[in-house]
Amino acid sequence: MQRQCGKIVLGCLFGLCAAIYADEGMWLFNQLPMERLRDRHNFEPTDEWIEHLRLASVRFGRGGSASFVSSKGLVITNHHVGARTLQKLSTLEHNYYHDGFHARSHADEIPAPDLELFQLVSIEDVTELVAKAVEPEMTAAEAAAARRAAIARIESESLETTKLRSDVITLYGGGRYHLYRYRRFTDVRLVWSPEMATAFFGGDADNFEYPRYCLDVCLFRAYENEKPAEIEHFFRVNDAAPTANQLVFVPGNPYRTERILTTAALKFERDKALPNRLDYLRRREILLQQYSLDGDEQKRRASGQLFGTQNGRKRSMGALQGLQDPEFFALRERVEDELRDAVRNHPDLKANSVAWDKIADVQRRQEGLLGQYASFHSQLYTIAETLVVKAIEDEKENEERLPEYRASGRHSLLKRLFSPAPIYDDLELASLADSLAKHVEEHGADDPFVQQILDGKSPRHRAAELIANTKLADVAVRKKLAEGDRQTLLDSDDSMLQLAWLMQDEWRRLRTARDELKEIERQAYAQIADALFTVYGESAYPDATGTLRLAFGTIKGYDEEGKTIPAFTTIGDAFADEDRHSAETPWKLPASWHAVREKIDLSTPLNFVSTPDITGGNSGSPVLNREGELVGLIFDGNIQSLTQGYLYREEPARAVSVHIAAVLELLREAYDADHLADELGR
Amino acid sequence: MQRQCGKIVLGCLFGLCAAIYADEGMWLFNQLPMERLRDRHNFEPTDEWIEHLRLASVRFGRGGSASFVSSKGLVITNHHVGARTLQKLSTLEHNYYHDGFHARSHADEIPAPDLELFQLVSIEDVTELVAKAVEPEMTAAEAAAARRAAIARIESESLETTKLRSDVITLYGGGRYHLYRYRRFTDVRLVWSPEMATAFFGGDADNFEYPRYCLDVCLFRAYENEKPAEIEHFFRVNDAAPTANQLVFVPGNPYRTERILTTAALKFERDKALPNRLDYLRRREILLQQYSLDGDEQKRRASGQLFGTQNGRKRSMGALQGLQDPEFFALRERVEDELRDAVRNHPDLKANSVAWDKIADVQRRQEGLLGQYASFHSQLYTIAETLVVKAIEDEKENEERLPEYRASGRHSLLKRLFSPAPIYDDLELASLADSLAKHVEEHGADDPFVQQILDGKSPRHRAAELIANTKLADVAVRKKLAEGDRQTLLDSDDSMLQLAWLMQDEWRRLRTARDELKEIERQAYAQIADALFTVYGESAYPDATGTLRLAFGTIKGYDEEGKTIPAFTTIGDAFADEDRHSAETPWKLPASWHAVREKIDLSTPLNFVSTPDITGGNSGSPVLNREGELVGLIFDGNIQSLTQGYLYREEPARAVSVHIAAVLELLREAYDADHLADELGR
Repeated sequence: MQRQCGKIVLGCLFGLCAAIYADEGMWLFNQLPMERLRDRHNFEPTDEWIEHLRLASVRFGRGGSASFVSSKGLVITNHHVGARTLQKLSTLEHNYYHDGFHARSHADEIPAPDLELFQLVSIEDVTELVAKAVEPEMTAAEAAAARRAAIARIESESLETTKLRSDVITLYGGGRYHLYRYRRFTDVRLVWSPEMATAFFGGDADNFEYPRYCLDVCLFRAYENEKPAEIEHFFRVNDAAPTANQLVFVPGNPYRTERILTTAALKFERDKALPNRLDYLRRREILLQQYSLDGDEQKRRASGQLFGTQNGRKRSMGALQGLQDPEFFALRERVEDELRDAVRNHPDLKANSVAWDKIADVQRRQEGLLGQYASFHSQLYTIAETLVVKAIEDEKENEERLPEYRASGRHSLLKRLFSPAPIYDDLELASLADSLAKHVEEHGADDPFVQQILDGKSPRHRAAELIANTKLADVAVRKKLAEGDRQTLLDSDDSMLQLAWLMQDEWRRLRTARDELKEIERQAYAQIADALFTVYGESAYPDATGTLRLAFGTIKGYDEEGKTIPAFTTIGDAFADEDRHSAETPWKLPASWHAVREKIDLSTPLNFVSTPDITGGNSGSPVLNREGELVGLIFDGNIQSLTQGYLYREEPARAVSVHIAAVLELLREAYDADHLADELGR
Repeated sequence: MQRQCGKIVLGCLFGLCAAIYADEGMWLFNQLPMERLRDRHNFEPTDEWIEHLRLASVRFGRGGSASFVSSKGLVITNHHVGARTLQKLSTLEHNYYHDGFHARSHADEIPAPDLELFQLVSIEDVTELVAKAVEPEMTAAEAAAARRAAIARIESESLETTKLRSDVITLYGGGRYHLYRYRRFTDVRLVWSPEMATAFFGGDADNFEYPRYCLDVCLFRAYENEKPAEIEHFFRVNDAAPTANQLVFVPGNPYRTERILTTAALKFERDKALPNRLDYLRRREILLQQYSLDGDEQKRRASGQLFGTQNGRKRSMGALQGLQDPEFFALRERVEDELRDAVRNHPDLKANSVAWDKIADVQRRQEGLLGQYASFHSQLYTIAETLVVKAIEDEKENEERLPEYRASGRHSLLKRLFSPAPIYDDLELASLADSLAKHVEEHGADDPFVQQILDGKSPRHRAAELIANTKLADVAVRKKLAEGDRQTLLDSDDSMLQLAWLMQDEWRRLRTARDELKEIERQAYAQIADALFTVYGESAYPDATGTLRLAFGTIKGYDEEGKTIPAFTTIGDAFADEDRHSAETPWKLPASWHAVREKIDLSTPLNFVSTPDITGGNSGSPVLNREGELVGLIFDGNIQSLTQGYLYREEPARAVSVHIAAVLELLREAYDADHLADELGR
């Protein structure tokens, strides 16, 4: 619970300082810092080594990281990354999320309802292609449209030619554009999962803390044509105990860092956006807690979302506390002033100096949009909204559509839209009623639009009525509606669709307003990136964008308030920690461990800390040794790492991982899963 | 968790409708509705009966209700009303709050650190005296000052003459002023308390729900001169099982209803005040939950506050949901329009018609003050603030002081200020750090005043520094400082005092701004009350003000979504409910019950519902039969009662009580406390 404020060293994104600190950096696979690796770690990766890491790494669904660990498509990730799928596959009778799962043969492996895995097969720099679509005399809006159209063209051409999912990724805030092509695995099955009791040992209390004792792991398998996928690139495993200062590599998909943010933007985060987000997360957390009190089944239904909400709350709180530290801003401002001085004095950068003011202006305008949403927290409503927006977008040319409705993402969109995962009426009611109530609170109950939305009822009654009068829980109904056009959807008497139509203009107004601000920001950050390249040279990594990056560092402990925190914990330490907490939930190890306590090698490493530069989205990332062998899986960062999104601090931020030795030991001894232990890495 | 929206019948405060509905009304003891009692319940109380009820009733500390139940000063109230004191007396070794307490002799009874009980010995109408202090040509501010001075004079004259605590109570929003004189009991000792497990069986989940199974009771004893106080008026008990439609009376101290509020004021509650309060309560709830995760001792330290916060959150949420029901507002507006029409058409009420606009204007001005505080959530800071404000106020004449610093309340103020109750550094740190952070969020970290407050540190570091550098945890230090004057406090190097000085101007600015708005409201509501008296006649009760009132009604069940909810539950039902929840906390009855399960008469009534008009502050109120015998103790209202503060609904709102039969049965069988069971009522 305590936040240790070590010495803050400002992050060196884009080489803002003379040298990038320590193990900072979420590197592009086509732009690895070879010199640093050689100089600092005496390591020179070959092209084959790099390609192997890229191809054995997997993006798990819409976020989260994973990797292939067998030639038969076995995929390893965190229990908490697989949680959504585990939840969707669970019922009150078979609560795999809570109790674990074990398929003893391929036939027992259960297909996930809507999960996709992505393997990054190629990267191509298309900056020139995108850039040339924009003419100098265009307005900001025209430029944005032109750029968006160019990106859509590149993506759909690539999709047609290669049949691979093709995404143009905006890097350096708009300074560069790279085309990423992915092989998609759409038939993914659950193979094995441990109990929540060990996957999330210590619960919310220990989340983002260290030392830790979690087996936050689960196994899936990619299938193709109803057979385990043949995988050429997968990670072998190495269960040797960690050694001090051992070099490790972490390929993964960090979803967002904001190290390029100007101080004006950071102040907006600090004073407006984060407090607002925290209010919402706390509201959602209490709602889910209250819903969970209704019974065991309710507790089960909400538990995944509750974890996600608490995780987000703790993460945002850590970030806010970091930003509220005046020392942090003093440093940020000094570095920003330095760059702005350099820009003012550089003959080629006259035009770039306005970027900071533009961004400051965007923050002021963003404030009016904060907390304004023309949407509701409800799965059924989200389906209705997706159907309506899709019908409207599909009337346009592909390149004019909103990005998420373009051809490049259509397969994934439909997979989600048609997911057979269960939707729980009572949880929908609690969520939608609260979401409607929040809308009332934002605008006042006398607002005429609010009154249209509520249709003369209280939020709770209106929510109940909406849920009673929609058929969107039925996948067949969704499929039928998705085949229709705008008129089909307009004619429907489905309550959720009607609400989605009512909201549509306002939804588009807000979307356009936000997109416009984002575009101004994008252009301004591109100018700043340009300036950085000019002033400091082009040698560094861009902010995280939810795409594959490589981080590296070493396994090592750290000091916290004078105490030395060891680099790793063992299975025996987990039992000791259980004792320390009198085995009270959430510090109660599962029966499966207790049953075989005598047989387990208690000295097996369980969790360890290392220095690679990671953030949310890295969960499930393989941790590899210099031979590219899997030694562990990232599952958390310590509390001191929670401001990493805004700046890299050398000490004492750490990534927290499960060690593969514990996975192997427990698969064999506690879970009677020799066949999986044997398959891992082979 | 579900809110049943029964038919809403608008409250008839001041006889707004032709008849006051059902058992509506929180009646003044000097103004009981004798006709209604006779006509509706065939009951004609004598003066002696009324006086007996008033004198046997007790206000418990600053809020909450209780009553005398023996000639030797025995006092009965709810466990949750005694909770603050139970917490203050508890340590990790002796957690009376959680585990219960039993003094087997007077010598074992433990003095509460800062508890006072108040017995209302007389009521005098002083409206004329207050009114004549105000001259017609005075401005609003002058009138307020004159009225305040008159009240202070009346109070201190009464205090000098009678030596009784003397409070002038503002009734009907300023329409009437009554002088209440109280006998104070300042030596109060803990006698007996059951375990939290039965006092709060069902926990937050079941709070405001029914059927219930709680023994929410505890016993204290008033002492005078180191001996049990001799009490003439106390309640005898009657443990006969409840009968259908049995008439019951509830004397108690409901702390606040707002049935007089105009629709403009209610809209402010609905759209601004309640959402804002809920955001804060959720924030506080999560903070206390997180703090509690740090260990058993932390859990113990925070549990009372956590209960209070959750209770407040559930209460405010119920109120907000009620206000967000459009049906409610339609009714309110209709009734308000009717009165305003009558006022417009009445020759004597021309001047009164502006009252509604004045109140609407106040709401607009209040918005700017919402969430603005120049104070912090910290016991140590509150002590510092009290010392500083007291020093400044003491420089003034008594009648010019802020009301809470006047002579009439000085004894109580000092009792609180010098309370030896423990202050926990780690809970102080969590609270103060968050409170400082909230201040940063409200004003932005760049605000110069915020920067002065933080003194270049993060909120957490600043909080730690403030706590490290104050000695106010030491009561002797407080006493010494309280003897000094402004200069003594200015010269002190105590960090909290210095912060309180820094905040003082802003604190006074906000206080003055709020007081000014309150004064405008008070005058406007007095005009509305006048109008009501003129139009409908003076025959009804004023809004609750935390002072003694009498409610009445009958014991009866109700219908909820077609289900008939029985009027009472039994001890046997409690065991059945425990089974239904697999005896999981908070549905786990204490070992003391299980040990003697065979001996307990399981058919003993445990909890029951009745119709009297109650609200927060009524907790602990005795429930009496027509003979004035104690049959139970109010401890809650059902979820349908949570909008009672704004309007009385005939059905299905219910007060929830513990039956005295269960108290007697369990004192004897489970708690080995025959001596107390024998003393009760004697």
